[in-house]
Amino acid sequence: MSTRPLFVVAGIGNGSGTGAAAARLFAQKGYRVALVARNADHLKRLAGEINDAGGEAAAFPVENYSYGATLSVFDNIAAHKWSSAGSSSLRVALWNAGSGVWKPFLEVTDKDIETSLQTNVTAAFAFSRGAILAFKQNELDERGKRGTLLFTGATAAIRGNVTTSAFAAGKFGLRALSQSLAKEFGKENIHVSHAIIDGGILTDRSLSTRGEAWVNNADVRLDANSIAKSYLYLVEQDRSAWTWELDLRPAHEKW
Amino acid sequence: MSTRPLFVVAGIGNGSGTGAAAARLFAQKGYRVALVARNADHLKRLAGEINDAGGEAAAFPVENYSYGATLSVFDNIAAHKWSSAGSSSLRVALWNAGSGVWKPFLEVTDKDIETSLQTNVTAAFAFSRGAILAFKQNELDERGKRGTLLFTGATAAIRGNVTTSAFAAGKFGLRALSQSLAKEFGKENIHVSHAIIDGGILTDRSLSTRGEAWVNNADVRLDANSIAKSYLYLVEQDRSAWTWELDLRPAHEKW
Amino acid sequence: MSTRPLFVVAGIGNGSGTGAAAARLFAQKGYRVALVARNADHLKRLAGEINDAGGEAAAFPVENYSYGATLSVFDNIAAHKWSSAGSSSLRVALWNAGSGVWKPFLEVTDKDIETSLQTNVTAAFAFSRGAILAFKQNELDERGKRGTLLFTGATAAIRGNVTTSAFAAGKFGLRALSQSLAKEFGKENIHVSHAIIDGGILTDRSLSTRGEAWVNNADVRLDANSIAKSYLYLVEQDRSAWTWELDLRPAHEKW
Amino acid sequence: MSTRPLFVVAGIGNGSGTGAAAARLFAQKGYRVALVARNADHLKRLAGEINDAGGEAAAFPVENYSYGATLSVFDNIAAHKWSSAGSSSLRVALWNAGSGVWKPFLEVTDKDIETSLQTNVTAAFAFSRGAILAFKQNELDERGKRGTLLFTGATAAIRGNVTTSAFAAGKFGLRALSQSLAKEFGKENIHVSHAIIDGGILTDRSLSTRGEAWVNNADVRLDANSIAKSYLYLVEQDRSAWTWELDLRPAHEKW
Repeated sequence: MSTRPLFVVAGIGNGSGTGAAAARLFAQKGYRVALVARNADHLKRLAGEINDAGGEAAAFPVENYSYGATLSVFDNIAAHKWSSAGSSSLRVALWNAGSGVWKPFLEVTDKDIETSLQTNVTAAFAFSRGAILAFKQNELDERGKRGTLLFTGATAAIRGNVTTSAFAAGKFGLRALSQSLAKEFGKENIHVSHAIIDGGILTDRSLSTRGEAWVNNADVRLDANSIAKSYLYLVEQDRSAWTWELDLRPAHEKW
Repeated sequence: MSTRPLFVVAGIGNGSGTGAAAARLFAQKGYRVALVARNADHLKRLAGEINDAGGEAAAFPVENYSYGATLSVFDNIAAHKWSSAGSSSLRVALWNAGSGVWKPFLEVTDKDIETSLQTNVTAAFAFSRGAILAFKQNELDERGKRGTLLFTGATAAIRGNVTTSAFAAGKFGLRALSQSLAKEFGKENIHVSHAIIDGGILTDRSLSTRGEAWVNNADVRLDANSIAKSYLYLVEQDRSAWTWELDLRPAHEKW
Repeated sequence: MSTRPLFVVAGIGNGSGTGAAAARLFAQKGYRVALVARNADHLKRLAGEINDAGGEAAAFPVENYSYGATLSVFDNIAAHKWSSAGSSSLRVALWNAGSGVWKPFLEVTDKDIETSLQTNVTAAFAFSRGAILAFKQNELDERGKRGTLLFTGATAAIRGNVTTSAFAAGKFGLRALSQSLAKEFGKENIHVSHAIIDGGILTDRSLSTRGEAWVNNADVRLDANSIAKSYLYLVEQDRSAWTWELDLRPAHEKW
Repeated sequence: MSTRPLFVVAGIGNGSGTGAAAARLFAQKGYRVALVARNADHLKRLAGEINDAGGEAAAFPVENYSYGATLSVFDNIAAHKWSSAGSSSLRVALWNAGSGVWKPFLEVTDKDIETSLQTNVTAAFAFSRGAILAFKQNELDERGKRGTLLFTGATAAIRGNVTTSAFAAGKFGLRALSQSLAKEFGKENIHVSHAIIDGGILTDRSLSTRGEAWVNNADVRLDANSIAKSYLYLVEQDRSAWTWELDLRPAHEKW
C-alpha cells in the first residue's frame, strides 16, 4: 500500500488568497491537503471544493493560534482517516497565517501586540515544531529532501515603517525563525524557505477595497496562484540548490 | 526652579553590564537616573552606589515584564520625589532588558518563546510608549530633540542561527519596533536608535564563564563603559545627523 | 514566418558550469542560444554540443569584457543567420561572466581591481544595455513580459570578507546594478533578477580542487543544472509575482 | 621631539561640505591635516583658512583619481615638511571623494560608469592601501588603535534605485571594500568605518539648488559639521567597541 504525500497549510482566509491557492495547486499535484484555519466554514467550503475537483482535502479548524492549539493540529492530521487508501507522509508545510494591524504607534494596544506576536510568531513556532518532527520521520525523497517548510512573509519582515510597529515586530520575528530553522535543519535535509510578498494580493475583497482599475491590471497586484507556483518551485528544488529567501512583487510595483 | 534631565534605563542585570554602565555615565553627566529591573536588591545597590558618588538615582522595581507592569513604571517615575529640588524632564530612555536562550529548536519550549517575546518585544512596546508619551511633553532641547530612545540589540537582531530561534525572534522583533519608531517619531524630533552589540561583554560573571585570558584581553570583549559612551554619543547627536543603527564589536571579533 | 525566442548567456567557462548548463536547458526549451565568452574554443565546443543534441546555438566570442566589446556582441547576434527559418526575439539574457580573486588586501594589485570592476561591473552594464534595448522592441509575451535579465551573483555580493575586497567590490556593484534595473524597468515589463550563489559549484575542475568526497556528496555542492532550473523558473514567473533576488545553496551548507 | 597625529582627507569639494568640515574639526583637535582633492585652488584656500585659524594644514592636489595618482599622495604627505616641529604619524584617513551621476540607465554612458567606478572604488582601494600601510607602522594609541579609516557612504550604498545604476554600483563597491577591510584589519587594531549619509547636506550650493526654506530648516538637511563630529566619535571609540557602520540622516527625513 503506497504512501501519499501530504501538504499542510495554515491560514486560508476566506479561500481566495495565498493559502487556498497553494492548497488547490498542491492538490492538483497529487498531495493530500490538510487545511488549517480558525474559520471552520471557510475550511469546510475549501475542502469541499478541492474534493469536488478530484483532490483530497480535509479541514482541521483551530480554536485559536495559541502554541498548544496550533501544535495539536498535527496530532489531528496524523489521526485523520483519509478516504483513499494508503498512509500519508507530511512533505510540505506552509505557514500562511498571521494577522496584521496598521496603526500609528500610540494607537497600538497591548492586545494588538499580543495578537501580532501570537499569530505571527508563537503559532509559527508550534507549526514549525509539528512539521519538523513529522519531516524527521521521512526518508529522503528523489530530490534529497525530508520535507519543505514554507513561510509567507511580507515587506514588513524586512522594513519597519510608520504604521507597522506591531505587524513588523511579528513579521521580523517570523523571518528570524525561518532563518534559524533553515540553518539548523538544512543539515538534516529539511528545506526551510521564506517568501517576502511585497505588494497587494488580488482576493475576493480587492474589488471593494482597491477598485476595479487595480483588480483588472495584472501588472500591479499579486495573483495568489502565482505565489502558489513559487511555493511549488521551492518544494521542487533539489538538495544542491535551495533557496531560503525570495521576494515576490508585481511588475509595476514601486519599491 | 529648574528642570533636571532624567534618564531611565530598564535592564541592569547585577550591576556590572551595559545598563548599569549607562546609568553611571548619565548620572555623571548630570542626569537624574531612574533604574528599572526585576531584581530589587540589584537596583537598590546600584542606586546607592550612584547616590554615594554624588549622582541622583532611584530604584523602580518591576514585578515582571508584562505590558502593564512595564508601562506603569513611568507613572511611578513621574510620581517620585527626588531629593534635590526641581522637576524632572525625561530626556533619555534606554531599553536594555530582554532575555536570551540558546537552544536547539526542538528543545525550545512554549515558555521559552513566551519569555523571549514578552521580555524582548512586548515590554519594549510598553517601555517605548511610556518614553514617547513623556518625550512629547518636552520642548526641543538645544540639539533640536525632545528625547532619545535607545535600544540594546544583538547579533541575533540581524541574523538567525542554529541555536537562536527564540532569541532571534525576539531581537528581530525589537529591531522592527525601533525602526518603525525611528521613522514615525523622527518628524516629532524624537530620536530612536538601535545598537547591535556583536560580541561578548565583560561582566562580573565573565571570569568564571570565559576565563582569564578573555577577561584580560581588551581586544576581544566589549567593555560596558564603552557601550555606554556610544549611547551618550547618540544622545548628543543634533537634529541634522541622527543615527538609527550602529554596530559595536571588539577590535578582534571575527564576523 | 514565426519568431523564435532567443537566449543569450555571457560567461560559459569551460562548458561545465552555470552558464553552459543554462544554455543547454534553454536550448531544450526551444530557445535559440547565443553563447558569449572570451575563449572561442570552449564556445565552439559547447555550441557544437547543443546543435548536435538538436538545439540551435551559435558562438559569439568577445575579445575582452570592455564596455565596447561587450555591447557589440548584441549587434553580432542581431546580424547572425540562424540555420532554421524565422527571426529571433531576444527574450532572456543571463550575465554569468565576471572573475574573482581571493587575496589579502595588501596583495591586491591595481590590475586585480581593474579586472574585477571591468568583468563584474562595466561589462555587465554593457550587457544590460544590449539586452534591455532588445527587450524594449518586444511585445509582451503570454506572461506579461518583454524579457528577463538574469545576473549570477555570489555570497560576495552581500558580504565583504577578509580576502574578498576586490571580488566583493565587483559583486556588490553588480548587485546594485541589478536592483537599479529591476526598479527602473519593471514598469516596462522587463524582469530583472539576481541570484546569490552561496556555495561551491560542481564543475570539471572540482575533482582536482575539492576531492572525491565533495564531488560525490550531493548535499554539499551546487549542481549547475539546478541553478539553471532556477533561472528557468525566474523566466517563467508571470508579471504578477516577480522575484528580484533569491539565494541558492546546498542543503548542508553552513551559512 | 614629539610625534603629531596626522589626519588625511580626500574629497573636499569647494570647502563647504563634509570633507572640509572634518578637516576643520580634526585640525582643532590637534591633528595635522593633509588635504587631498583635484581642485588645487579649493585645497589652497581651505589649507589657508585652517592655518589662519591656528591649525596646521597642507594641500596635496591629485591630478585625477587613478590608482597610481591616488596612492602617490601618501608619498607626498610623508615627504612633506610641516612648519611646526616634530614628525607625523598618520592616525586617521577619511575617504570622502567619489562622484555621483543620477540618470536613467539608458542615458548612462561608458564614461559615466568608468568615472563612478574609478572615483568611488578604484581610488578608494589606493587610498586604503596608503592609509593601511601607514597605520601598520604605528604603535597602538591609548585607545588600542593603530589608525582609523573612514569612508563616506550614501543611501546608494545600500539601495539601488531608478536613476542610480552607475552611482550605486560605485557606492555598493565602496561599502564592500570597507567591510572587507574592517574584517581583515580589525585583528591588527586598525578600525575601518563606513557612514551611510542618508539625506541632503547643507553646502554653499544649497541655497540655489534647494531653496531658502530647506536651507533654514535644521530638521531636513545634514550639517557637514555634525557629520564631522560623528567621524570624530568613531575615531575616539576604544578597541572594545568599534562601529563598522552607522547611518546619519536629518530628524525629519522620510526613509
